[in-house]
Amino acid sequence: MSEGVEWGLHACIALDWIGDRPVSTAKLASTFELPAPYLNKHLQALARAGIVTSTPGPRGGFRLARDLSEVTLLDVVTAIEGREDAFRCQEIRQRGAGASSDPDAFRKRCAIARAMRSAEIAYRRALAAKTLADIRDAAERDAPRAAARTREWHQSDKES
Amino acid sequence: MSEGVEWGLHACIALDWIGDRPVSTAKLASTFELPAPYLNKHLQALARAGIVTSTPGPRGGFRLARDLSEVTLLDVVTAIEGREDAFRCQEIRQRGAGASSDPDAFRKRCAIARAMRSAEIAYRRALAAKTLADIRDAAERDAPRAAARTREWHQSDKES
Repeated sequence: MSEGVEWGLHACIALDWIGDRPVSTAKLASTFELPAPYLNKHLQALARAGIVTSTPGPRGGFRLARDLSEVTLLDVVTAIEGREDAFRCQEIRQRGAGASSDPDAFRKRCAIARAMRSAEIAYRRALAAKTLADIRDAAERDAPRAAARTREWHQSDKES
Repeated sequence: MSEGVEWGLHACIALDWIGDRPVSTAKLASTFELPAPYLNKHLQALARAGIVTSTPGPRGGFRLARDLSEVTLLDVVTAIEGREDAFRCQEIRQRGAGASSDPDAFRKRCAIARAMRSAEIAYRRALAAKTLADIRDAAERDAPRAAARTREWHQSDKES
């Protein structure tokens, strides 16, 4: 999994703490000392998924497109990593020794692919069961000053 | 996830069908038309994990080290992909705006990392709940001739 997932999740929670106004990629990148061009790529992916909206122009930037209670971990992982399963069946059962089999033998999806798919579903269900609001609330319990500190950082002149 | 997981799983089931004798990498690779050097790398990983044993020499090769009912999907995935979680927390919460926080704020693991860890555990539990014997049995139900076909392939002179 790319580091973009961690960046995207933190960016969404920071945008929630900052409030409903566009935040530039440079400013958001400075919040976590990230390279702005790479962060921008991931923010664009979140925008394509309808999680954030992008406003162009000198006072533009990114803001949340919906409440964090309506965004799950799965939404962000899928936006950044794509929809493909981790396991990709290449149907090697049909090659070599299997090549001359009755086509009926391959009517059902390969038993290995089915089992890997079940585990992928368990993973996605766990990701879908958690919203970014749940995570933000937990972060606020762990660090009661984090939200205020993020807002102060964004009102300061650090980067722009 | 690398294609090695699919290769390794099919190789274990083929070894079970072939029976308790060493099978050369070349022969096993020919079973699925795979490149032998890459397959060998994955078989070595399975050997290090105690799933197969490797016998050196001209009549050597790989055989199963234990019954397929004692090997789970998780064992093979871990042997080939390693033990690391898909999500790797880089603690970006401690940088930039977070750098001057009270250290207490970071006493607990980051809420994002905790949520991603829960999903990883759900994934691993699903993988650990399925043995290669379950998968072999399902494959035999789907394709009753597959086991015999694999044995015939290995008694023939295709590759060596």
